Amino acid sequence: MAAPTARLVAACPDRPGIIAAATAFVADHGGNVVDLQQHTDHHDGAFFLRLEFEVDAFDVDRAGFAPAFAPVADRFDMRWRLGHSDHRPRVGLLASKQPHCVHDLLHRWREGDLAIEVPVLVSNHPDHEAAAEWFGVEFRHLPIVDGDKATQEAQVRRVLREHGVELVVLARYMQVLSAEMCDEWSERIINIHHSFLPSFQGARPYHQAHERGVKIIGVTAHYATAVLDDGPIIEQDVIRVSHRDDVDDLRRKGRDLEVAVLARAVRAHIGDRTLVYGRRTVVFD
Amino acid sequence: MAAPTARLVAACPDRPGIIAAATAFVADHGGNVVDLQQHTDHHDGAFFLRLEFEVDAFDVDRAGFAPAFAPVADRFDMRWRLGHSDHRPRVGLLASKQPHCVHDLLHRWREGDLAIEVPVLVSNHPDHEAAAEWFGVEFRHLPIVDGDKATQEAQVRRVLREHGVELVVLARYMQVLSAEMCDEWSERIINIHHSFLPSFQGARPYHQAHERGVKIIGVTAHYATAVLDDGPIIEQDVIRVSHRDDVDDLRRKGRDLEVAVLARAVRAHIGDRTLVYGRRTVVFD
Amino acid sequence: MAAPTARLVAACPDRPGIIAAATAFVADHGGNVVDLQQHTDHHDGAFFLRLEFEVDAFDVDRAGFAPAFAPVADRFDMRWRLGHSDHRPRVGLLASKQPHCVHDLLHRWREGDLAIEVPVLVSNHPDHEAAAEWFGVEFRHLPIVDGDKATQEAQVRRVLREHGVELVVLARYMQVLSAEMCDEWSERIINIHHSFLPSFQGARPYHQAHERGVKIIGVTAHYATAVLDDGPIIEQDVIRVSHRDDVDDLRRKGRDLEVAVLARAVRAHIGDRTLVYGRRTVVFD
Amino acid sequence: MAAPTARLVAACPDRPGIIAAATAFVADHGGNVVDLQQHTDHHDGAFFLRLEFEVDAFDVDRAGFAPAFAPVADRFDMRWRLGHSDHRPRVGLLASKQPHCVHDLLHRWREGDLAIEVPVLVSNHPDHEAAAEWFGVEFRHLPIVDGDKATQEAQVRRVLREHGVELVVLARYMQVLSAEMCDEWSERIINIHHSFLPSFQGARPYHQAHERGVKIIGVTAHYATAVLDDGPIIEQDVIRVSHRDDVDDLRRKGRDLEVAVLARAVRAHIGDRTLVYGRRTVVFD
Repeated sequence: MAAPTARLVAACPDRPGIIAAATAFVADHGGNVVDLQQHTDHHDGAFFLRLEFEVDAFDVDRAGFAPAFAPVADRFDMRWRLGHSDHRPRVGLLASKQPHCVHDLLHRWREGDLAIEVPVLVSNHPDHEAAAEWFGVEFRHLPIVDGDKATQEAQVRRVLREHGVELVVLARYMQVLSAEMCDEWSERIINIHHSFLPSFQGARPYHQAHERGVKIIGVTAHYATAVLDDGPIIEQDVIRVSHRDDVDDLRRKGRDLEVAVLARAVRAHIGDRTLVYGRRTVVFD
Repeated sequence: MAAPTARLVAACPDRPGIIAAATAFVADHGGNVVDLQQHTDHHDGAFFLRLEFEVDAFDVDRAGFAPAFAPVADRFDMRWRLGHSDHRPRVGLLASKQPHCVHDLLHRWREGDLAIEVPVLVSNHPDHEAAAEWFGVEFRHLPIVDGDKATQEAQVRRVLREHGVELVVLARYMQVLSAEMCDEWSERIINIHHSFLPSFQGARPYHQAHERGVKIIGVTAHYATAVLDDGPIIEQDVIRVSHRDDVDDLRRKGRDLEVAVLARAVRAHIGDRTLVYGRRTVVFD
Repeated sequence: MAAPTARLVAACPDRPGIIAAATAFVADHGGNVVDLQQHTDHHDGAFFLRLEFEVDAFDVDRAGFAPAFAPVADRFDMRWRLGHSDHRPRVGLLASKQPHCVHDLLHRWREGDLAIEVPVLVSNHPDHEAAAEWFGVEFRHLPIVDGDKATQEAQVRRVLREHGVELVVLARYMQVLSAEMCDEWSERIINIHHSFLPSFQGARPYHQAHERGVKIIGVTAHYATAVLDDGPIIEQDVIRVSHRDDVDDLRRKGRDLEVAVLARAVRAHIGDRTLVYGRRTVVFD
Repeated sequence: MAAPTARLVAACPDRPGIIAAATAFVADHGGNVVDLQQHTDHHDGAFFLRLEFEVDAFDVDRAGFAPAFAPVADRFDMRWRLGHSDHRPRVGLLASKQPHCVHDLLHRWREGDLAIEVPVLVSNHPDHEAAAEWFGVEFRHLPIVDGDKATQEAQVRRVLREHGVELVVLARYMQVLSAEMCDEWSERIINIHHSFLPSFQGARPYHQAHERGVKIIGVTAHYATAVLDDGPIIEQDVIRVSHRDDVDDLRRKGRDLEVAVLARAVRAHIGDRTLVYGRRTVVFD
């Protein structure tokens, strides 16, 4: 059994001495670094760090980390957060009718494949109620009544708050979120969207992809922002297709890809491997 | 040593009996089918066929094929062409300054990896002269003088015609072709372009891709049409990238991908595996 | 909605006229070929065919196909089988303790992603009972008592027979099957095994792979034969790993790969896309 | 233009404070860390580090690094080496008859795609003489006379020494190296070998792979050791194949894979991204 670790994820303007200061802080307090990845983007002069260290002999408790680390953080103008390997983030799932992503995430949760808690599954449709019961997650059916999306979203946000949700995963949730909701869980809402080469405007992208004879279809997972499908990219993947694939085949292959890409994006997030910087996400290995 | 084969590539409206008629024609004349791929697109009611047969005992000569096959072709309203495995298509290369695609194609030609002839390499820059000499291909430097692109393109087309070029490969040729030139070698000009997820408008796509933090970059090979980078897709591929890749790394990975995708597209074309249908290319395996 | 189709899968010694005869038979009886893939292996002189045709106007019923087709089959010494797109094969699942493959296949069955029936799930452990109930599949717990594997296998085979199982899928079933059982469901038992580069003898392959620093791990799906993990290969895939992946990470990535490769192998089988020839499986696209 | 950097690559038993000490050393001497990757293998208690830092303000010169760094290295029992981004390693190429890898590496060298010098190309066959002249590399034809491999290898080693070769790349060199030669350039000879799933003993692996119906073929680049094809793995990759690929197609696809995998392995080595530890190679991203 691996010892519990803390993961410090940080970004700041580049200058000499940052790693030395951060690792000296850890070592001075009895921590042992087990994985460190650091990268400097020359173009932006930006420094990115993920530092994972064993905490069994670390003499600063979690509540005390921020004040203890403040001198280092302040000196380098650091934006940082700290996660812990023994903390299972509370993940709220939002879904519409399609089951593939919901089902995969609940299965991974139950089997311990993803170190998360899933306190609630919210949907604007009733379809997932039985699955929720089977997996042992509370189900909240919050339909959009009379087209009043604002009221429904307010209900959704209340439910997420009541359940202490730290990460929202849109598991094929076919509603556009308001800018306010994206702000409330900023960099903590993961969504996926189709990615085609070339990209297609308008409706029925799989039909267009088929008509255009694309050889590859793709999926992108991103942090939701106010601009639809434009948030910082966390993970992408593609699959080869051919003229033998009809539109239903494309959809089916797309579903398998959505499942895989979304699970990998969630894993990166809960492993404190993601760092949003401007319009992009630095994803540490 | 494999026996020489002919490859019949055909498209027509779908109806019963097409394959039976085509294969009976081949069998009745002593041909032996060694590879047949047929697909019907239900959505379009379109029938696609690639039929490869050994010709050593085939009693119709090449000049006589069209009239002999006409009854079958007419009966099914077939658009078709016939290629032969022992015919090495004459490929004209067009390039600007970058050497990677030119070099790879010439190397494959010389080593017999691609069953082509390369009678001429045309460039608007002088850079490839020595390479052309080394590989034993005629080099024609046709610069654009005083911005007169039309005159230069007319020269290019004349050179291609003089060399009996059957297939034009744009091996990083940074000039836009006129609609007239695309028409003259319709479905016989292969080009490549970057493909990003998401796609980027405007200049310096690699810079945009880096800034946007894309995790995958791609390349598409297509048949050139009058609309830039919009022709029927022949082949696509992608490669994973990360925040550790700076813009130069993206360019370098993109080059390797361009080489691979362009060579595969040329191989598909010369193997009579491509069939343009509307805005797409059916590519048989 | 696509019309129902029949799929003729056949192998025979190569000679001229086979396709013409087969497609003429289909056309003469009112069938319309919608997808045909044929390949000749020159080295072996072997002819492989998959011919899919619409049967709504086909004037031979299913019981009558064999006698009607016999003249063609006999003339070319053909080994063949006929499947139908509207037939949902009865799949018996065998599993031990691990849930990932069982769960994925049951989910795909229920969602209609795989056109199968799953009448029974058999296990030598009780773990999957609740899952079976939830998915609505009969569960049979058949433990190995006092190390008597032969008796347990006899029970398993009886249960599979009673449920009319046409395809057996070993969804992480950790028991070696007898040659007799492999014979009874010859070319109708699908199993998966690890595939490493290089391969490792002996126990704990993931430990060995980690120690050896492999950069890729793989999974192979095959038809079970009397020689363990040596049957004809249906599908393979790999995933990249690195020194950052500990043994548990390798196992986790291996599980995701097992799920994907097994589902693709099952899909190929039920789509009548596989044809065993000697030690190999020809898999039509 | 990026500033020149030094790369410290190190392994030692894990204990707290290593990174803090190493980065403090760099910072104290005016270096600025631009990329750091560290990983601890819990199973082995082993610590791996790659630390890249800008040297323009670094106040220790190259000759002085070892004594200056000795206190840190000694304290942690560190095995380490230091490379520099502005040093172009002298690469000696060994090849037999096949040109694809030789040609690709020489092309990458000339185009600046690989930051190396290639002072000499040695072959036991005369085939590459003209190519060597064209690329501007000295060619040494050292045939094996009367089966005397030892004498020829002694000549090869002398030539490599005379040219100050730091890295030996076996670009399809079909001779087995002696243990002595592997020792002389220990962890500095890169070779490639086929990797099949399953692996095949004996001759003609592509024939066996075809007969067995493998769906994937692979290539592995490794550091040569006295045991053939068993050295620490640097890079691996695979490509999908099908029953349509005959043995020549497998060979051709294998060649493209060899070119790609070998170039990536060389790039990893010269970028000081490889660290041999026991039987494996840690490859930093």
